[in-house]
Amino acid sequence: MDVPMIISIEGADATGKSSVAQFLCERLEEEGYEVLFLREPGSTGLGERVRALLLHDESLSLGVRAELFLYLAARAQLIEELIRPAIKQKKIIVLDRYVDSTLVYQGVVGGLGVEKVLQVMIDFFGVYFPQLTIVLDSDVDVIMQRLRDKDKIESRGREFFEHVVQAYRDLVEIFPERMVLIDSNKDLNWVCDEVWKAIKERL
Amino acid sequence: MDVPMIISIEGADATGKSSVAQFLCERLEEEGYEVLFLREPGSTGLGERVRALLLHDESLSLGVRAELFLYLAARAQLIEELIRPAIKQKKIIVLDRYVDSTLVYQGVVGGLGVEKVLQVMIDFFGVYFPQLTIVLDSDVDVIMQRLRDKDKIESRGREFFEHVVQAYRDLVEIFPERMVLIDSNKDLNWVCDEVWKAIKERL
Repeated sequence: MDVPMIISIEGADATGKSSVAQFLCERLEEEGYEVLFLREPGSTGLGERVRALLLHDESLSLGVRAELFLYLAARAQLIEELIRPAIKQKKIIVLDRYVDSTLVYQGVVGGLGVEKVLQVMIDFFGVYFPQLTIVLDSDVDVIMQRLRDKDKIESRGREFFEHVVQAYRDLVEIFPERMVLIDSNKDLNWVCDEVWKAIKERL
Repeated sequence: MDVPMIISIEGADATGKSSVAQFLCERLEEEGYEVLFLREPGSTGLGERVRALLLHDESLSLGVRAELFLYLAARAQLIEELIRPAIKQKKIIVLDRYVDSTLVYQGVVGGLGVEKVLQVMIDFFGVYFPQLTIVLDSDVDVIMQRLRDKDKIESRGREFFEHVVQAYRDLVEIFPERMVLIDSNKDLNWVCDEVWKAIKERL
């Protein structure tokens, strides 16, 4: 109970990140831990403004480098305002997307390169890297079907999701100590059990 | 006339950067060059929004890392939208503040460290570093007097300006090939002559 811990939940869209995060926060609280749940970008004044720029202002047509640095600005402020104080209070921090989303979306899919993106994040956020990252791994067919079921119109096609899913699998190979790949094609109860097993080993 | 060239004008506040930039653009145009003048942050849709966040939104009370990444986001977009196309058109680009302002204000004065800030800028903007940087160097007494003359209320005191002025002098020692220190205590005509000499050598 005395180890400050940052846990991030990662994966492509529609792999069940929000449900798993909700389960995890409730379960940790049941066990007596204080938990802070965060979602990027957002959660701070700057984060909300950055979210609006990134997600709702198509007139800007941002390049991938500008996108990267906006995400990093929001993250820097999130760490400053919320993560650092929460760690001091010995809370467990659960994040729905964090540093690995930047590695996958801007580093791999956006083409900036994992090494360069990793380097800048280590240089400026090194201490605040997650100690544990749950990667939810669904087949692309399952993802596409779930998006259709949710009436989510995805402007990006199948190829994009294949790229994202593979990039997460590759990251788990690079960081096997920190990252755990969990098959999220299966039902939510099974997935949550697996997640809890991975957490318990580290608490 | 066939060498694409990025020239930046740097220095503390009230060292005459705008006047020198104006002189330089006019003089280059008289000589037949096509010139693009830019000021950071700003000049793009994202730049204007970032400027508003950085300069006018005190409710955010941004940390220095968030500030750094917001400047880098604006710069990334400026390069993408304006600098890269201008270089293709063989224009000379004159910038009022650029990469060295980030090194001085966030790297040195903000305490993030010159090396780390330099590294991220080389990794992501390396090709677009200035070939020539004019550093206008005034004594702090002169700067404080000019600010008073302009009725500029400066929330930051003498010590801040001493830090900035010294940081620029140190940078010129680190990058002697690219940077030229010009004594801007003297009158504008003398300063502009010196600037023009430095430029001519490189055209």
